[in-house]
Amino acid sequence: MGPLKKIAVLTSGGDAPGMNAAIRAVVRGAIYNKLEVMGVIRGFEGLIENDLIPMDSKSVSNIIQQGGTILKSARSKEFMTKEGRQIAYDNLKQHHIDALIVIGGDGTFTGARVFSQEFNIPTVGIPGTIDNDLYGTDYTIGYDTALNTVIEAVDKIRDTASAHSRLFFIEVMGRDAGFLALRSAIASGAEAVLVPEISTDYKKLDAFLKNSYNKEKSSSIVLVAEGDKISGGAIKVAERVDKEHPDYNVRVTILGHIQRGGSPSAFDRVAASRMGVSAVEALLDDQKSVMIGMVNNEIVYVPFNQALKHKKPLNPRLLELIEILSI
Amino acid sequence: MGPLKKIAVLTSGGDAPGMNAAIRAVVRGAIYNKLEVMGVIRGFEGLIENDLIPMDSKSVSNIIQQGGTILKSARSKEFMTKEGRQIAYDNLKQHHIDALIVIGGDGTFTGARVFSQEFNIPTVGIPGTIDNDLYGTDYTIGYDTALNTVIEAVDKIRDTASAHSRLFFIEVMGRDAGFLALRSAIASGAEAVLVPEISTDYKKLDAFLKNSYNKEKSSSIVLVAEGDKISGGAIKVAERVDKEHPDYNVRVTILGHIQRGGSPSAFDRVAASRMGVSAVEALLDDQKSVMIGMVNNEIVYVPFNQALKHKKPLNPRLLELIEILSI
Amino acid sequence: MGPLKKIAVLTSGGDAPGMNAAIRAVVRGAIYNKLEVMGVIRGFEGLIENDLIPMDSKSVSNIIQQGGTILKSARSKEFMTKEGRQIAYDNLKQHHIDALIVIGGDGTFTGARVFSQEFNIPTVGIPGTIDNDLYGTDYTIGYDTALNTVIEAVDKIRDTASAHSRLFFIEVMGRDAGFLALRSAIASGAEAVLVPEISTDYKKLDAFLKNSYNKEKSSSIVLVAEGDKISGGAIKVAERVDKEHPDYNVRVTILGHIQRGGSPSAFDRVAASRMGVSAVEALLDDQKSVMIGMVNNEIVYVPFNQALKHKKPLNPRLLELIEILSI
Amino acid sequence: MGPLKKIAVLTSGGDAPGMNAAIRAVVRGAIYNKLEVMGVIRGFEGLIENDLIPMDSKSVSNIIQQGGTILKSARSKEFMTKEGRQIAYDNLKQHHIDALIVIGGDGTFTGARVFSQEFNIPTVGIPGTIDNDLYGTDYTIGYDTALNTVIEAVDKIRDTASAHSRLFFIEVMGRDAGFLALRSAIASGAEAVLVPEISTDYKKLDAFLKNSYNKEKSSSIVLVAEGDKISGGAIKVAERVDKEHPDYNVRVTILGHIQRGGSPSAFDRVAASRMGVSAVEALLDDQKSVMIGMVNNEIVYVPFNQALKHKKPLNPRLLELIEILSI
Repeated sequence: MGPLKKIAVLTSGGDAPGMNAAIRAVVRGAIYNKLEVMGVIRGFEGLIENDLIPMDSKSVSNIIQQGGTILKSARSKEFMTKEGRQIAYDNLKQHHIDALIVIGGDGTFTGARVFSQEFNIPTVGIPGTIDNDLYGTDYTIGYDTALNTVIEAVDKIRDTASAHSRLFFIEVMGRDAGFLALRSAIASGAEAVLVPEISTDYKKLDAFLKNSYNKEKSSSIVLVAEGDKISGGAIKVAERVDKEHPDYNVRVTILGHIQRGGSPSAFDRVAASRMGVSAVEALLDDQKSVMIGMVNNEIVYVPFNQALKHKKPLNPRLLELIEILSI
Repeated sequence: MGPLKKIAVLTSGGDAPGMNAAIRAVVRGAIYNKLEVMGVIRGFEGLIENDLIPMDSKSVSNIIQQGGTILKSARSKEFMTKEGRQIAYDNLKQHHIDALIVIGGDGTFTGARVFSQEFNIPTVGIPGTIDNDLYGTDYTIGYDTALNTVIEAVDKIRDTASAHSRLFFIEVMGRDAGFLALRSAIASGAEAVLVPEISTDYKKLDAFLKNSYNKEKSSSIVLVAEGDKISGGAIKVAERVDKEHPDYNVRVTILGHIQRGGSPSAFDRVAASRMGVSAVEALLDDQKSVMIGMVNNEIVYVPFNQALKHKKPLNPRLLELIEILSI
Repeated sequence: MGPLKKIAVLTSGGDAPGMNAAIRAVVRGAIYNKLEVMGVIRGFEGLIENDLIPMDSKSVSNIIQQGGTILKSARSKEFMTKEGRQIAYDNLKQHHIDALIVIGGDGTFTGARVFSQEFNIPTVGIPGTIDNDLYGTDYTIGYDTALNTVIEAVDKIRDTASAHSRLFFIEVMGRDAGFLALRSAIASGAEAVLVPEISTDYKKLDAFLKNSYNKEKSSSIVLVAEGDKISGGAIKVAERVDKEHPDYNVRVTILGHIQRGGSPSAFDRVAASRMGVSAVEALLDDQKSVMIGMVNNEIVYVPFNQALKHKKPLNPRLLELIEILSI
Repeated sequence: MGPLKKIAVLTSGGDAPGMNAAIRAVVRGAIYNKLEVMGVIRGFEGLIENDLIPMDSKSVSNIIQQGGTILKSARSKEFMTKEGRQIAYDNLKQHHIDALIVIGGDGTFTGARVFSQEFNIPTVGIPGTIDNDLYGTDYTIGYDTALNTVIEAVDKIRDTASAHSRLFFIEVMGRDAGFLALRSAIASGAEAVLVPEISTDYKKLDAFLKNSYNKEKSSSIVLVAEGDKISGGAIKVAERVDKEHPDYNVRVTILGHIQRGGSPSAFDRVAASRMGVSAVEALLDDQKSVMIGMVNNEIVYVPFNQALKHKKPLNPRLLELIEILSI
């Protein structure tokens, strides 16, 4: 293959705040390095439908602060088939595109890895997901913004919880991982947290809630990760507690899709800007099938194989912190 | 009865942002007029439990910007009985309190009216509820803040709705009234709104959604007031639409208790400040059983009887506006 | 003149949050009424440079929540000349535009009035300015958002003022009018306010500050309208106080241009939506030279002559409120 | 010395968002470890004035989300004298306090180091400053919140900058360090940044601005750190540019004290919570004169000597990023 001349960028899977900042950094990083760059609309689906647009510096002006993704996102069933990927590849070739940058989560990288190997097309991934569940990077784009969205919501709910001395169970996103729930529990001063990584110890929760109740704390807040299947989510836990302790004044709120939106935080904008430029540099550096990661504030390349194989563990120190701080 | 020397203030029912600003205005308005003032903790419940504290200018420092209520709120069953109210009255007398200012919604005023008449104790109400459903006042304290909370949430959801071309049904508070849903629908650029005052015309909704879908709008958002019992709330409506149009990519979010909290908006802080001082002045002006209202930017006195008897109508012009603007 | 078929819309003068919501409402209101509509880029300047674009429903999608103005704004010297206006008129005619909707403040309406009369072209104004200084309307678009921006800033400054027991003078916008300063002073719990409408009584200010200092209030905040020329703005006032009372721990902050930006508040979005549609209806209603106003929550037509001739007075009741609440 | 039984905590120097979260973590961390804890009001000044209060779990309830510091802060001249420190020490002894935790910046730690050595009183520092200029820790408490405050302000200013095609010079805090300016420049999409660490290359700035102007970028934003003494701050730079290029439409905004306030971000709340508990553990671990740092997401102990001796360098990669992204 000859030297790199033209690349494409797409966003795929669940959207996350900061994806636009990453797109901007990819586009401007490419132009800075004398590469042409095209944007794919609606992820792998758009690649199959040949929905690509040329991008220049101006097409990413004034987007760094916007939530969502100007390239739109989608989940593509057709891309899971060999035939779909062949069409996608043919479209890339038609546009003389040499390499691909994909922004998304593990589903996105699974697709990208297969595609990259099948057609020998260099592909670099940028981790964009509010779940922060990718191995090999300390942070994913969107995670910090989602944390701030959650704590602002919990701050609001605590106003009303305090006014009425209520016990609130609040469900936050995180199908398979408790990162968002755990950190936002610490940051919002929640009294307890339930995460999928640890099976809920009802006796302990019960003892804790009884203790809070007896201390006449003005309110209590428990965060529940949606993916905590054993507990069944916030509604199930709340029903169980309410049944046993009808005097606890229990309420439930499911934060839902507000967690995916909003203007990205400073942290996410800086991370997205660094990762976007680094993704272009990785391609120039002849990388073929890696995710850009950030470890100890430095950029690293993480092979897709590795990022997808391992499960990132929760920091046990943070779990302990919840217990200390709710004393 | 002799001249007014000492008053008490309480918050009752569902809390609303701006209640603290109103408490501050009552306390400082009282002091400015050489009155003593006590705060009752936990509304009518606290009146029965004799949980009162003396308040001075400093006790309301730095609370104008806080959500919730420093006096806490509660719903009191005992106050619905003659015996309960007798205890409450005895407690007031024990503290030499001549008059009462209550901050809350229609439930609060219903209790206050009975109490005021039964014991001939002058009582003035300040309308504090995010529902804006009190007759005789253009605005209630908390309504404007809740509107802003809703539109910020919808702005976030639109980010992700646009990224995925989805149809979102978002449920907002408003058990009996569609004010919050209607205004926030206009302000958030929602494509449609379902309110309890108007029975849902499914044919029209269907035609509208089909039209949107065919126009390939990047996303559609429909606000649903929780109190829309005929439609059954956002979940029921969404299920129905999803069943008929599985291709519409339907999602639901219930905003829940975040709508009651948060730092009050400028509008609510000014309204609460005006109403709080006016409530004190109303007592000095020998009013006995009235709600403070704001009509055409001026303070008015509305007899409890009147405020509770009538139902405030939705502005039909605003309903029409939704239709024009979603073209 | 035949029936109305095609209109143009522009924004001019200082920008204000909610201008985009107004543009959206004009465009969709026009389409709803079967009118064609063009947008003029950069106000009257763009009219002279013939910089117009056709607009449809999609061109105003997803802008209701954006600050600034997608049509851009400018101040045009050329439009102040007869020759400039003739070119502007010729351009309108070339595009077969029958009428004009202008969004801005008094400078904008002064130009629009002359233009409208000179060429007999029906022109309707929408009041968009954070200063709220237009006669004939209770509110102008952008005012409520600016109020919220100011109080959020003052809330932040109070954190640090309280931590250090400082006296802060904070300058807010308002060249000729103290509306923004006065209302935001009430809403932020400021201890005093200096506005251009009232000459600063230094003795009173001094007595007040001395009193605060002796009471050991944890902090004091005084808002100063930039247009308060007699006092010379926040810096001059602060210097004077600091010189006389070096022990007061004085600080100054000038809020500046952040007050013009930001996502519009719910109030401003609803007002802009109503006014935008009403402006189109005013043209259909054969109005020729009026501003859309909002009085007592209802839309009114205010002749430019009247809106520009009178000065809107401050509400004396609000000035009194500051004094009561800072007791 | 016997085993640790009682400690005191204070905040000193410029306040920073997250200080309250740190106080809460110190207090609860102490209680969790069976220690008594007192709070000192107004920093070292309060230590000399013997202004201490006992603290329990409830006294730090509901403060994690508040800006400022409930313990207040001050700069103390008397503590710089041997006599002052002797009084402070005597007061500590009178209360049977064995060790001290101080939250602040380099001025605070300089005082703490002397005090600790002079009287052999174990003292642990928690880095709380928006400047992020302490050696030995990746982050200081308040830095992330200040970054978010700055970018929200710049987002607002960009609205109006874009509407008018203006060039804005915006001054941010940072007397001796450009961390805040540099990161917020990246995060807000600023076109250039001037920091004290690097002497301003006016030729380069000029060439850059000329290029932007010729490209007809809709607006340009340059961030200037206040401590950039060579350039003289934003006003001086703006005057110089305006003089040479009167056609550039130059404006200046000095963000000022809003940068110190506000509810802390999720990042700062988590960091403060971890550091607060770790400070208690450091004392239990027999540390005597160290700052708690966070390096690569792990807690480290940094001797005061080291933290104060070295100057933390800017990341050159981030400076380069600005150039790439403003292409």
